Amino acid sequence: MGEKIVIIGSVAAGPKSACHAKRLMPDADITLLDQDTLISYGGCGIPYYVSGDVNDEDELRKTSFHMTRDASFFEHAKGVKVRTSTRATAIDRQKKCVEVVNVDSGEKDSIPYDKLVIATGSQPFVLPIPGAELEGVFTISDLHKAIAIKQSLAQGKIGKAVVIGGGAIGLEMAEAFADLWGVETSVVEFMPQILPRIVDSPFATMVQKHIEKAGVHIYTGEGAQAIEADENGRACRVVTPNRSIDTDIVVMAAGVRPRTQLAQEAGLQVSPWGIVVNNRMQTSDPNIYAAGDCVESTNLITGKKMIAPMGSLANREGRVVGDNLAGIPTVFPGVVGSFIMKAFECCIGTTGISLETALAEGFDADASISAPSDRAHFFPTEAKIPLQLVFDRPSRRVLGVQGFGPMGDAVLARINAAAALIAKGGTIDDFSLLEMAYAPPFSTAIDALNAAANVADNMCRNRQRNVSIQNFLAWIDKPSSQPDWTAFDIRHPNEVAPFAEKFGDIWQAIAYNEVRNRYSELPTDKTLIIICDAGSRSYEIQVFLDSVGMTNTLILGGGFNCIARMDVDWWPQKIV
Amino acid sequence: MGEKIVIIGSVAAGPKSACHAKRLMPDADITLLDQDTLISYGGCGIPYYVSGDVNDEDELRKTSFHMTRDASFFEHAKGVKVRTSTRATAIDRQKKCVEVVNVDSGEKDSIPYDKLVIATGSQPFVLPIPGAELEGVFTISDLHKAIAIKQSLAQGKIGKAVVIGGGAIGLEMAEAFADLWGVETSVVEFMPQILPRIVDSPFATMVQKHIEKAGVHIYTGEGAQAIEADENGRACRVVTPNRSIDTDIVVMAAGVRPRTQLAQEAGLQVSPWGIVVNNRMQTSDPNIYAAGDCVESTNLITGKKMIAPMGSLANREGRVVGDNLAGIPTVFPGVVGSFIMKAFECCIGTTGISLETALAEGFDADASISAPSDRAHFFPTEAKIPLQLVFDRPSRRVLGVQGFGPMGDAVLARINAAAALIAKGGTIDDFSLLEMAYAPPFSTAIDALNAAANVADNMCRNRQRNVSIQNFLAWIDKPSSQPDWTAFDIRHPNEVAPFAEKFGDIWQAIAYNEVRNRYSELPTDKTLIIICDAGSRSYEIQVFLDSVGMTNTLILGGGFNCIARMDVDWWPQKIV
Repeated sequence: MGEKIVIIGSVAAGPKSACHAKRLMPDADITLLDQDTLISYGGCGIPYYVSGDVNDEDELRKTSFHMTRDASFFEHAKGVKVRTSTRATAIDRQKKCVEVVNVDSGEKDSIPYDKLVIATGSQPFVLPIPGAELEGVFTISDLHKAIAIKQSLAQGKIGKAVVIGGGAIGLEMAEAFADLWGVETSVVEFMPQILPRIVDSPFATMVQKHIEKAGVHIYTGEGAQAIEADENGRACRVVTPNRSIDTDIVVMAAGVRPRTQLAQEAGLQVSPWGIVVNNRMQTSDPNIYAAGDCVESTNLITGKKMIAPMGSLANREGRVVGDNLAGIPTVFPGVVGSFIMKAFECCIGTTGISLETALAEGFDADASISAPSDRAHFFPTEAKIPLQLVFDRPSRRVLGVQGFGPMGDAVLARINAAAALIAKGGTIDDFSLLEMAYAPPFSTAIDALNAAANVADNMCRNRQRNVSIQNFLAWIDKPSSQPDWTAFDIRHPNEVAPFAEKFGDIWQAIAYNEVRNRYSELPTDKTLIIICDAGSRSYEIQVFLDSVGMTNTLILGGGFNCIARMDVDWWPQKIV
Repeated sequence: MGEKIVIIGSVAAGPKSACHAKRLMPDADITLLDQDTLISYGGCGIPYYVSGDVNDEDELRKTSFHMTRDASFFEHAKGVKVRTSTRATAIDRQKKCVEVVNVDSGEKDSIPYDKLVIATGSQPFVLPIPGAELEGVFTISDLHKAIAIKQSLAQGKIGKAVVIGGGAIGLEMAEAFADLWGVETSVVEFMPQILPRIVDSPFATMVQKHIEKAGVHIYTGEGAQAIEADENGRACRVVTPNRSIDTDIVVMAAGVRPRTQLAQEAGLQVSPWGIVVNNRMQTSDPNIYAAGDCVESTNLITGKKMIAPMGSLANREGRVVGDNLAGIPTVFPGVVGSFIMKAFECCIGTTGISLETALAEGFDADASISAPSDRAHFFPTEAKIPLQLVFDRPSRRVLGVQGFGPMGDAVLARINAAAALIAKGGTIDDFSLLEMAYAPPFSTAIDALNAAANVADNMCRNRQRNVSIQNFLAWIDKPSSQPDWTAFDIRHPNEVAPFAEKFGDIWQAIAYNEVRNRYSELPTDKTLIIICDAGSRSYEIQVFLDSVGMTNTLILGGGFNCIARMDVDWWPQKIV
């Protein structure tokens, strides 16, 4: 036998490291440890198992060729030993061994290693609020809890659910409860928007409104303060500053923390974001590697350290660990931050950083928002996919892209392409010319992503001046509180009519193709907010008005296609 | 008024140049010329108009906000003059004017310019065969011909159709005839495969078999030699070396040639691939730009010149022309070759170059073929998407990616990401670590594209040795003609049974998870072709057998998931 390799943790990064290393070094003696009995499962599939999209928990543990990834599978198919129910309690770096205890028998053992891999993952953050420990409060941390939740659903015990946390896992769980099981579901999120730090507010609002239309209650800007119990000691109510919500189950999805205690106690370098590794996934002890949710990651855009708990990253890092164990100097350069999520019949995706993050990180950042078609407008399945491209003005570097659209892979196709360019330091010009594949059933001649970059180019060269959606909504909300302004609606008169009727004086209109002849009718003493469906006509009109000396205009980026998806309450007619 | 800009050609690159330049230079005096009456239409939508997916030809001429892009639209909405039915007959570069003639009245005129843009597009190549000029023989070159074809279909005059040319336009037209209209349709292609020079033979075969199952006859490797007429002088038969096919209509889709005569006669530099331009789209006369199908393009992978007739490129180039007309030094670096096509219920996509092209261009190229899932295997809509990644061994640079899958945007999402990396000179390692967005409804933890790169990595590091699909098919076809070999099928015994029964001695089998214990049963004097569904288990077994000294093995890359899609006639059981 060759080198002895011990791997602590057997969900994602652990098994990937083990199997790849074994293929590279067939004579290596590799052992996977896990304190659980269930290993190597698709944790990201838990919401789909709970929802019923996936029938059996076993499906999450199977390979694509239908073998269950249990200890026997790893031993016989992969040649990797597995010790389940085995908790690592300490790492003795001098003796190079891992102290373990069998969680059932209490039996202790010491496992020697030549190389060690720590893949201890993350643990859910449990809010320090009264009632957090009650029966009926679940975190989404392992398969056992998911099985318990699904059993309760199947037994009809859950009529109401509260999810604490409006991040991805919280929203996916809310959909799982509400969609198939018809559970009356509420989400409470402490931050002022759902998906905080993932997407910017307009996109969070689009997702939120869609989820709310599907029947889920979402309360943002109010944190859970307490969980109350019924007479049997079960969680039955979630209390926020504004309300108290009856429930049969509470899911706490308030983020995760890296599991670093073992590494820390072994004297390895650990930061608040996880175990510190170099870009070959090596810890401060050269014989110890680490990968997955438990490691500190580097954000490739900001250069800052972060926690990046994603099954996809864990697998990529695992392969890098395997390479390096075998002496192949592969590097893991860092994280771009690609993200995609199903939300009922819609989908939200992003890569890179949000505008909010970019500004907070000190970039001279701005964002182009647009609402292009995902495929040829004459193709029957065409839909609008609002896109936002975040860029750094001085360097023209693209920092992030966000997209919202109908469920399907249209947003994915733009996010993945953007992720590739952002990882390579791509600029607005790279995005503008990126050769997205084109045929009418799939895209437009100028792809949605190219178009988003073209808008950014116009903004970056100071040819296009926007009002932000947030500011526009504030102006509409209290017209008189703002500088002297009027909407200038250049859509078709039929589209304009209900708005003109509702808003009166502050709603001027001339159809797009008549502005060149009739612009003298426009007031010159007011700020004109130019409005169309997608923003592109507005740009054309702004440029024209500039050329005739009427420079006091702003464009509503993304136009009414974006606002309509935000389901604002002042909308004069409901748009499907 | 500012500079006088004249643009010859008003379909894609022309209008884009005009409108972008006008926005950058509102006082410019811009005139679009076209010999046709219909301008600025989505020519790539013609097959979908003929099929009926798009009801009205007018839809192809409309903006996304439902205005028809006619002369009046350009004049009023865009501030750009249009002269239709106006053919440019000569360019006088000394006097800086364009000689034109009105194609209706015969009236001549001379239009002065400060800057000129040539966007004359391409013309269909008409095969020099007898009957090519007959009534009933159409090229897909403009809207008028499409309208005529659709009228004939609607009038029930077309029961049978023959398409000459198995490229994208030919196949899209074949689908248009067969799918909605139920026309008995045949495609003849001179080259040994459809989509020649676009994808490699295995992918062409997958597409072909799918199209054939939908009822279209495809004859490859046989060129049309003549078109015969009925008693009324209408085309009624297409003759190839192997057959003669009755038909009511012939569509000639044998490629296009750049329209360069005007440029050539004006003394501009012109190559066989089009008008020569620098990367700012400037011709050999600095006052004359050119863009679209009529220009010579540079392939970013091979560095060679090529014709790249794509509406998407025309639009991107048009924007670059507009920038440069306004003094902004934007460059168009060249073409990657992204391509996507609907084929009934499937989709084929590619970017970069094929393996065949790579080898012909002198690369030390190889290709990894795989058949990964497009989303989590436990998600209900999961499908396999065969992917091929073409790479250069010494530099590890990725040269191209091909994908085949069900209709939808799953293949698009991988092709677009690949296009972005290939444009940036991405290597196998870049692809392996590319941060594709992940959630189970959209992808797998190791995305299909990452997995394809991992296979390429294994091949490039000589850990994986493949038999090509073509060679495997030849071996199966005549087992005795090849070196002493046997299939080694590691799938589930139930999957193996019909093959073992059919092929007898040349079909050995041990289930994947039993090989480590039973490999001594395998013959040591034969080449083992290791077979599984997707190729990944086969790799694991090859590596293991290598480690025990059994190195005479080859893997069937992509496994039976690819072969099954090629619908080979020796398949013992039909797989849906």
